[in-house]
Amino acid sequence: MAGGIGSRLWPLSTPEMPKQFIDVLGTGKSLIRLTMERFLPVCKPEHFWVVTSERYVATVKEHLPEVPDEQILAEPEPRNTAPCIAYASWKIRAKYPDANIVVTPSDALVLDHEVFTDAISKALAATENSDAIVTVGITPTRPETGYGYIHTAEPTPGKVVKVLEFKEKPDRATAEKYLADGAYLWNAGIFVWNVRTITSELRAHAPQIAGVMDALAPSFYTDREAAEVRTHFAECEKISIDYAVMEKSPHIHTVACNPRWSDLGSWGALKEHIPADADGNAVVAVGPGGSDVRLFDCSGCIVHTDGTRTVVLQGLKDSIVSLRNGNLLICKLSEEQHIKEYSTPRN
Amino acid sequence: MAGGIGSRLWPLSTPEMPKQFIDVLGTGKSLIRLTMERFLPVCKPEHFWVVTSERYVATVKEHLPEVPDEQILAEPEPRNTAPCIAYASWKIRAKYPDANIVVTPSDALVLDHEVFTDAISKALAATENSDAIVTVGITPTRPETGYGYIHTAEPTPGKVVKVLEFKEKPDRATAEKYLADGAYLWNAGIFVWNVRTITSELRAHAPQIAGVMDALAPSFYTDREAAEVRTHFAECEKISIDYAVMEKSPHIHTVACNPRWSDLGSWGALKEHIPADADGNAVVAVGPGGSDVRLFDCSGCIVHTDGTRTVVLQGLKDSIVSLRNGNLLICKLSEEQHIKEYSTPRN
Repeated sequence: MAGGIGSRLWPLSTPEMPKQFIDVLGTGKSLIRLTMERFLPVCKPEHFWVVTSERYVATVKEHLPEVPDEQILAEPEPRNTAPCIAYASWKIRAKYPDANIVVTPSDALVLDHEVFTDAISKALAATENSDAIVTVGITPTRPETGYGYIHTAEPTPGKVVKVLEFKEKPDRATAEKYLADGAYLWNAGIFVWNVRTITSELRAHAPQIAGVMDALAPSFYTDREAAEVRTHFAECEKISIDYAVMEKSPHIHTVACNPRWSDLGSWGALKEHIPADADGNAVVAVGPGGSDVRLFDCSGCIVHTDGTRTVVLQGLKDSIVSLRNGNLLICKLSEEQHIKEYSTPRN
Repeated sequence: MAGGIGSRLWPLSTPEMPKQFIDVLGTGKSLIRLTMERFLPVCKPEHFWVVTSERYVATVKEHLPEVPDEQILAEPEPRNTAPCIAYASWKIRAKYPDANIVVTPSDALVLDHEVFTDAISKALAATENSDAIVTVGITPTRPETGYGYIHTAEPTPGKVVKVLEFKEKPDRATAEKYLADGAYLWNAGIFVWNVRTITSELRAHAPQIAGVMDALAPSFYTDREAAEVRTHFAECEKISIDYAVMEKSPHIHTVACNPRWSDLGSWGALKEHIPADADGNAVVAVGPGGSDVRLFDCSGCIVHTDGTRTVVLQGLKDSIVSLRNGNLLICKLSEEQHIKEYSTPRN
């Protein structure tokens, strides 16, 4: 899934070039590229499928040239994750009726690939010949209020077990209770299932979306597909896969793991994954040459620039400084929940 | 005089494009353009002369297309103001042996043109048929420690009077004494004299420089001038006109005026001349379209951008934010004396 616009990381992430296509960490690779490479141990390059917005199709091809054109699916408009997953699932099923599928966001970070691959492999083994739905559960390391949680009776790492309940993003006190309890995992939004399972689950719990897909299916892999999708995709109910299926199906499982995962959903989350200097400043200067970033009397800052010139920062504490494509953000980390509002054009 | 590099206003002013060529105030005109236009009431366009660095000759022509090519004088290297003024004076004298001259920096601001023109006219009248040297004295409005002062017994506005003494930049207590006393004026570095006077004063007090100019003079207005100047100009002693002439000559006068002048020599000085919002923030967004600058919880800041994108600033107090040609400065106004050091490349 590569259709998001990542508005909380503005100006690093913009609707023109969202987070998944950006070298957020200064590694020389975009997050979508890192995501594809992370799954290569369990999936051949020709078996990757990407659902994205029409406007990002060319960008996806640049970042993932191995993915066949017909496996880059263009949404004419965002309808949340259920229609996105339905489109990919119906199209995959037409060619691979027994496909075992991992659905993943393309803009998250995983540092421990071995642990992650082990969990994904366990989940794939569990879904290959069953109607299990497995959602990856991340063993929490702090009382995070920015993620949804998965409640399970048996949070044993690497073991596929039943989910008791999904929990919305908690308040701080509840998050601390979850962390202490040990039976709650972060919901990473990574799902594993067989194509037979997800199509029949969508048919059962989201029949309107299934109906649109059944009508579109005869056009798949033909010259008519793009036009048909452009005309009818927007008829799908706008609903997340969590509401449409995960909270309704009785087949939901999880596999706990601690692969040092982050959704990189905020500047604060990003800061945790960039090495800091002695004063706690995390600096990423991307692009050819990179900027000459000079800090004086600064502490606890995250600085992200894409320029090739000189950046002088003096006297900033616990702040975000991001300079990208000529856009500039300076903001206290404590106020980062307002960035979307700050950066939205006023009328 | 248009050879300075204005390092205290980095990154607005850089060696590649210093302050005098910049639309510092967001008026649509550079400071050198504003300077020329300010003198049009007393000087025809074809009688302007500019001394600048070789590297800025093309830029001067862009900003002042009315000035004849042979009146844009290129210094092969900076030797301070005495050789700069000598070169222009010797060259002017060769063509206009009775010229009455105003020497002025090209990067200062004057808001009250009528008062200024009156003072300049008085000075020109005083020097036309005498050997008077008149330096413009600005009636101080605050105990400024960043300027030199002129001591006179008769600081009457608009009257050309004798100077008692020049004073270096004072400390705060001395500046307050000067302000209270009333007999001290700011030295704006603007000089008025007849070409006969300044050439003979230089010959008397800076004979080494006069000797270089005498040797160069036969090449003036010929094909050899550029090559001769490039070879010999650097032989001149590196000295300011203040030390070379003003402090030695017995003919020094001043004319007091309060034309709301500023040397715009620092971000703090610049901030005083840009209208502020209710929170004391002064914002200049130059260039086609200008940036969309949005301030949240900011006060007492000066913001100067040349971009056409979005700039979001949150939580900054009494700070400088300047984004120009991809260079970025964020600095407390109280630390601005360190900007030159901050912005100098490290080895």
